[in-house]
Amino acid sequence: MKLNENYSQLKESYLFSEVARKVGAFQAANPDKKVIRMGIGDVTLPLAQTVITALHKAVDEMGTAATFRGYGPEQGYDFLRTAIKDYYKQAGVEIDIDEIFVSDGAKSDIGNITDLFSKDNTVLVPDPVYPVYVDTNIMNGRNMLYMDGNAQNGFLPMPNKNVRADIIYLCSPNNPTGACYTKAQLKEWVDYALENKAVILFDSAYESFVSDKELPRSIYSVEGAKKCAVEFCSLSKTAGFTGLRCGYTIVPKTIESEGLSLNKMWLRRQTTKFNGVPYIVQRAAEAVFSEDGIKETRAMVAHYKQNAQIIAKTMEETGTRYFGGINSPYIWFECPYNMDSWSFFDFMLDKIAVVGTPGAGFGKNGNNFFRLTAFNSRENTVEAMERFKSLTK
Amino acid sequence: MKLNENYSQLKESYLFSEVARKVGAFQAANPDKKVIRMGIGDVTLPLAQTVITALHKAVDEMGTAATFRGYGPEQGYDFLRTAIKDYYKQAGVEIDIDEIFVSDGAKSDIGNITDLFSKDNTVLVPDPVYPVYVDTNIMNGRNMLYMDGNAQNGFLPMPNKNVRADIIYLCSPNNPTGACYTKAQLKEWVDYALENKAVILFDSAYESFVSDKELPRSIYSVEGAKKCAVEFCSLSKTAGFTGLRCGYTIVPKTIESEGLSLNKMWLRRQTTKFNGVPYIVQRAAEAVFSEDGIKETRAMVAHYKQNAQIIAKTMEETGTRYFGGINSPYIWFECPYNMDSWSFFDFMLDKIAVVGTPGAGFGKNGNNFFRLTAFNSRENTVEAMERFKSLTK
Repeated sequence: MKLNENYSQLKESYLFSEVARKVGAFQAANPDKKVIRMGIGDVTLPLAQTVITALHKAVDEMGTAATFRGYGPEQGYDFLRTAIKDYYKQAGVEIDIDEIFVSDGAKSDIGNITDLFSKDNTVLVPDPVYPVYVDTNIMNGRNMLYMDGNAQNGFLPMPNKNVRADIIYLCSPNNPTGACYTKAQLKEWVDYALENKAVILFDSAYESFVSDKELPRSIYSVEGAKKCAVEFCSLSKTAGFTGLRCGYTIVPKTIESEGLSLNKMWLRRQTTKFNGVPYIVQRAAEAVFSEDGIKETRAMVAHYKQNAQIIAKTMEETGTRYFGGINSPYIWFECPYNMDSWSFFDFMLDKIAVVGTPGAGFGKNGNNFFRLTAFNSRENTVEAMERFKSLTK
Repeated sequence: MKLNENYSQLKESYLFSEVARKVGAFQAANPDKKVIRMGIGDVTLPLAQTVITALHKAVDEMGTAATFRGYGPEQGYDFLRTAIKDYYKQAGVEIDIDEIFVSDGAKSDIGNITDLFSKDNTVLVPDPVYPVYVDTNIMNGRNMLYMDGNAQNGFLPMPNKNVRADIIYLCSPNNPTGACYTKAQLKEWVDYALENKAVILFDSAYESFVSDKELPRSIYSVEGAKKCAVEFCSLSKTAGFTGLRCGYTIVPKTIESEGLSLNKMWLRRQTTKFNGVPYIVQRAAEAVFSEDGIKETRAMVAHYKQNAQIIAKTMEETGTRYFGGINSPYIWFECPYNMDSWSFFDFMLDKIAVVGTPGAGFGKNGNNFFRLTAFNSRENTVEAMERFKSLTK
């Protein structure tokens, strides 16, 4: 057989393995030091009580003949799709139930949706970028274009009329920069996509961190988006589902090209290559959207947002230029002392035993930036920031 | 953007929707008749008690800060991969832990692995065939070849030296025919693959139904297979996990082509486009492989196998030629009265209110055959077979 040679074009991803290696070496050399990890974007709080109760109930159903469930609909049970539809409605966005596809997470869908496009598309991604957008398209052999995110544009690159792209990835609130597009900015992107017959793949995994009422939590709050945008969302950060695995993707029925419907193609892809999310997990997800579920999970988000505020305040106090941290769990700051991001990583680990993520791991525009996450205990966050202050004195 | 035009080459899959439509119409016209469904290959028994206990325990862990788990390894937790390794070892097959990839089911992996091959491969599938093998390759635009399964070869097609194929799909015990390759037959396939530098994608989802000690439950019990075969397995039928979703795929490190390692490519694919199976489901899967778990789930399989025997005995009593049913939950029989499979479907539904799956849904060689499944209650199976006897009198 012939293997897919595009795989040999992939860059080895050393980011998190290199971080782990360095932290391991440091800890071995300094066994008495307490390392505080603010690198990986993984939640730390346990699942909400409402979710746990729903899981136990669903597990019992699976243990009883009368209530046992085998294969479910690949695109998700109606009880969950209805809950998601209502969640959007509360935010003022109307979505049809058959535009909602439940999945095991945004990463899977963001990767798998590339199946639906021909090789001959030009892909536009921001730099810094969540590496999955790039790697999944390299696997398909597509031409990639990068647009600069930088301090000048607040890490929110805008359309360039001289650039012709077919598939555009946007993530807002952004990973890794924490920057968040306004509705007016997203409108410019939608207009660009409609004019260029492009599709926007919109990653809204961090929407629950948006507290500013003026900022959009869904691209569909922008007129015209249902004709050009697919939206990926997840309960990973909204409800701490990183280990439970449930997301959802909105593929509007109004996106078509040369007689093919993207919604129908995605339905076909999912029914052919996927067998749905576990019933018990779908019941857990349904519980997230209940009144108590929303209350409990929003309290979890509030906890992380308060951590983000503590980090942001520290950046201000130390005169460190930063982005994000208000409508996002990520703080993206300029490395002090003009250091590059890997040097700063070593410096911070060595001096104060705090771990973050070097911006270089997200692209060339991250070379002098650094990502810290708010996913931690209050105690660790406060302690890490006290240490940080000593670092920049 | 340009959509993947290969999708327009897919045939609409009317099989199960057409079955559902006909059954619905029949039930509406005959509201007093009890329809017995033996069509869809979905389990009916609830999860084993050991599995339920493991699920509750894992759910509690997820509700407590000290034991909560976020992102896990994409390829599965070591505790489960070790259990799978040991399960193979008990069957006399040695697999390295990093050759084992835990997934949400065999269908996902069988579909997704096509990512790893270039478009320029010739794919060989049996007819009758599980449609996923065909559709996933049509989506990639690959050339398809079919090999005849028929009554003469017992629905076990063997390699033809005049046919050059790069990717070969084998399913044993087979869906839909229930036929099972011997070790000597699989050896011929392995030899063919090695000679042609082809890869065998071996679907062993029904391995737990093999009770004949001489028949292979893994292709790796055949010498040379680790150089040319990927094996897909699932707990769907082994332990009734169709609604819980867990499978595993073995990608040997010894499969290479032009400097690329299939194992490394699959690891990269999974870490890029997948985030692993829920922790609680992996704990449930681990419980399946425990001593009690094996005992309880084998009892479930035995229940279905006894149903299969009842169906097989009925075929013998009515002089109906059939395949499968011994080392498989499927009975594949020749339609009585020289009927084609859809006519027989209508006839059986109309006369005795029993639903099966027309063989035509699996390819042209199924036109005069019919599939019944053993996934049912004893009572329903017995009643359906009593009715069947009246049909052929």
